[in-house]
Amino acid sequence: MKRKSINEMTREELAAEYSELLAEYNKVKAERLSLDMSRGKPCREQLDLSDGILTVLRSGDDCFDSLGTDERNYGIISGVPEARTLIAKLCGVEAENVFLGGNASLELMYGAVARAMLFGVYPGSTPWCKLEKVKFLCPAPGYDRHFRICETFGIEMINIEIGENGPDMDTVEKLVAEDESIKGIWCVPKYSNPTGTVYSDETVRRFAALKPAAKDFRIFWDNAYMVHDLYDDAPALLNIFDLTKGTENEDIVYMFMSTSKITHAGSGISAFITSGANMKHALSYLGTQIISYDKVNQLRHAKFFGDSDGILAHMKKHAAILRPRFEEVTEAFEKELGGRDIAAWTKPMGGYFISLDMLAGSAKRVYSLCLDAGVKLTEAGATYPYGKDPKDANLRIAPSYPPLSELRRAAQVLCLCAKLSAVEKMLADSGISDTAVSNV
Amino acid sequence: MKRKSINEMTREELAAEYSELLAEYNKVKAERLSLDMSRGKPCREQLDLSDGILTVLRSGDDCFDSLGTDERNYGIISGVPEARTLIAKLCGVEAENVFLGGNASLELMYGAVARAMLFGVYPGSTPWCKLEKVKFLCPAPGYDRHFRICETFGIEMINIEIGENGPDMDTVEKLVAEDESIKGIWCVPKYSNPTGTVYSDETVRRFAALKPAAKDFRIFWDNAYMVHDLYDDAPALLNIFDLTKGTENEDIVYMFMSTSKITHAGSGISAFITSGANMKHALSYLGTQIISYDKVNQLRHAKFFGDSDGILAHMKKHAAILRPRFEEVTEAFEKELGGRDIAAWTKPMGGYFISLDMLAGSAKRVYSLCLDAGVKLTEAGATYPYGKDPKDANLRIAPSYPPLSELRRAAQVLCLCAKLSAVEKMLADSGISDTAVSNV
Repeated sequence: MKRKSINEMTREELAAEYSELLAEYNKVKAERLSLDMSRGKPCREQLDLSDGILTVLRSGDDCFDSLGTDERNYGIISGVPEARTLIAKLCGVEAENVFLGGNASLELMYGAVARAMLFGVYPGSTPWCKLEKVKFLCPAPGYDRHFRICETFGIEMINIEIGENGPDMDTVEKLVAEDESIKGIWCVPKYSNPTGTVYSDETVRRFAALKPAAKDFRIFWDNAYMVHDLYDDAPALLNIFDLTKGTENEDIVYMFMSTSKITHAGSGISAFITSGANMKHALSYLGTQIISYDKVNQLRHAKFFGDSDGILAHMKKHAAILRPRFEEVTEAFEKELGGRDIAAWTKPMGGYFISLDMLAGSAKRVYSLCLDAGVKLTEAGATYPYGKDPKDANLRIAPSYPPLSELRRAAQVLCLCAKLSAVEKMLADSGISDTAVSNV
Repeated sequence: MKRKSINEMTREELAAEYSELLAEYNKVKAERLSLDMSRGKPCREQLDLSDGILTVLRSGDDCFDSLGTDERNYGIISGVPEARTLIAKLCGVEAENVFLGGNASLELMYGAVARAMLFGVYPGSTPWCKLEKVKFLCPAPGYDRHFRICETFGIEMINIEIGENGPDMDTVEKLVAEDESIKGIWCVPKYSNPTGTVYSDETVRRFAALKPAAKDFRIFWDNAYMVHDLYDDAPALLNIFDLTKGTENEDIVYMFMSTSKITHAGSGISAFITSGANMKHALSYLGTQIISYDKVNQLRHAKFFGDSDGILAHMKKHAAILRPRFEEVTEAFEKELGGRDIAAWTKPMGGYFISLDMLAGSAKRVYSLCLDAGVKLTEAGATYPYGKDPKDANLRIAPSYPPLSELRRAAQVLCLCAKLSAVEKMLADSGISDTAVSNV
């Protein structure tokens, strides 16, 4: 196996490797594989972990909550009391700051933006749809569905670099302070999608102390992976509400979470967590929208877990399934791509993704090569606003779903495509116009 | 018992009856009752009918749909195939015209209005929030939550009288033809809330053939009680989609329904049913909002009922529970209020409500008298836009929830209050200023 940096290879060496890789690639193509590393879906074994939730409520009597309310019936807009308490404990907040949604935190985020567009963020504030321009800061690479919400609502997105400690806070602080049209920022503070970044204490403190020019600026704190650790020595995230409480930024955070990747991805429960003032404002519209979300399912979750320790114990079982999958991929990267200056990748301590950075200008090419070889990745560019990766370098790898054997094969093919693309690029950059290259 | 019309009573007779009623009322007040006929909630026995749904899915294997998809996982935005087919068959449409939502059709209605406000009704149409004025026609008395949606979005509501055959179609046709700012109408075409009206064939035909000035006018066809018959000889409702299909009005209907009053009110499934063009437009936004609604619960419903005949058989069990409750109330009305020109009421063949019309200017008074005597009714005025009943006459009676014995007592108290208010009013109108009256 070659470990030589491609930057140190001669043209002849590159051409030789290229022929070799191309032959291998064509062989793989002939296999007509059909492998998928495109979306952060839990695998069957993970879903099986929560099957007990299907039968935790077996009768009408089981459907009464701790206060004696029949949760099969209408009512209680904010959700089942013990389920709110469960989520509140997990998040380190009070139950009154928790609104329980349906099976999708995405819907709660969409709803929060939609309410801001239509009705404003606090009583008397201007609805965003009445403003000339609304902008959001978007730490990137990030979550494509966040960006799609902005795009759908015509919110202009500004890329913010995300580093080891989280978003580039110097830029965030500067921009929000000087531009009143910046109304929000998307954050996945723990195990960011896709970089796996955990925001450092300093980053969280700087978020809590932001001084935005816009009074209706909100931090969209999507804590999707708050308990999704792969290792026991998982990094901790500061509780941002502890930092904002009692300050002038008490209302700055909208937090979201769900159990989609805790119980069943298609039928979890979600939560919107925020200050009393924000909650009161939101409820004045949520009360028009719905009588309550599915309370029987909320009660199922409360009874299945008992308490927040129950969730943490459950997450260790997820980790045991996911850890080998993540390591399979990062080990393949290390083995095939290490030391060659072809790519850089994250080794996340949790979450659902590995972020793979290719040579600039290569991500789309690698994506296409993989697709043609039967390996589906998240589309190149998807991790950036408007689907436009300014460097065309980033790929999001989702190792959770495929069986381990398929994952191994998919990672091998990905590495092959990454090498093929890199060598091809070096040859092209060095001026060799090889029709074989462009025809792959 | 007096059966004499109050219009034929002398002042002395009225005064005598007033004293009698007042004494009785004060006795009832002393009982400190706590009875509730305020909301259309199913009773415990009704909820128990569907407890089998709690355990219809018992294992991971049970969660695979007929196409072999694991519905515990993400995906399939429009919903579980067999659940879509179930609802489609029930509604007499194709599965492709059915989008399955969460537990609340209200949320789908709110969402449809919100999308129209933000993005317009079809590609290229002006978002309603950009228009100077948006108006909805509101057949009234009607459903307070429909009206609240309009009020929340700042949509001006125009009352339309509702008669035996449905809304006053002459007025509907005239207004929509001449006013382009009229963008919608709320309809509960079968067992209208609260009048129990079933739209006649002619009414449905006239709806299907409406010629609105606004191209982005939509009929919000809330078929909440489509299978909620109390009697076997239930009246049928024409399928409006059969009438609009292939016409220039193919896109005019947004239909909504849910299983909230079929299975469990807190955890049913809902559906948005519309033309292909409308569905395509809606999905382009729903795809930003959510990955899918709760598919495990959709699958539960499909397996619990098997097919649409399963739903119809199930509804007969609901009817057996509800019928005596409705009859208890209408019989009390007949017995206590009949022949006295005090009130008029509906005897619905289905749905959830009885509509009670008092003497003009009396509904609020009767509501308060009942409340003070420990009987909670839906607030007077709630059945009209802006909570303003122009005649202050209508009360919505919900007989489903209280146990039969409580319902009997509540109906008696209501009749007492109705009589007290009527006699009091006759005395006041005839010029007697009795301080006892105003002090009740």
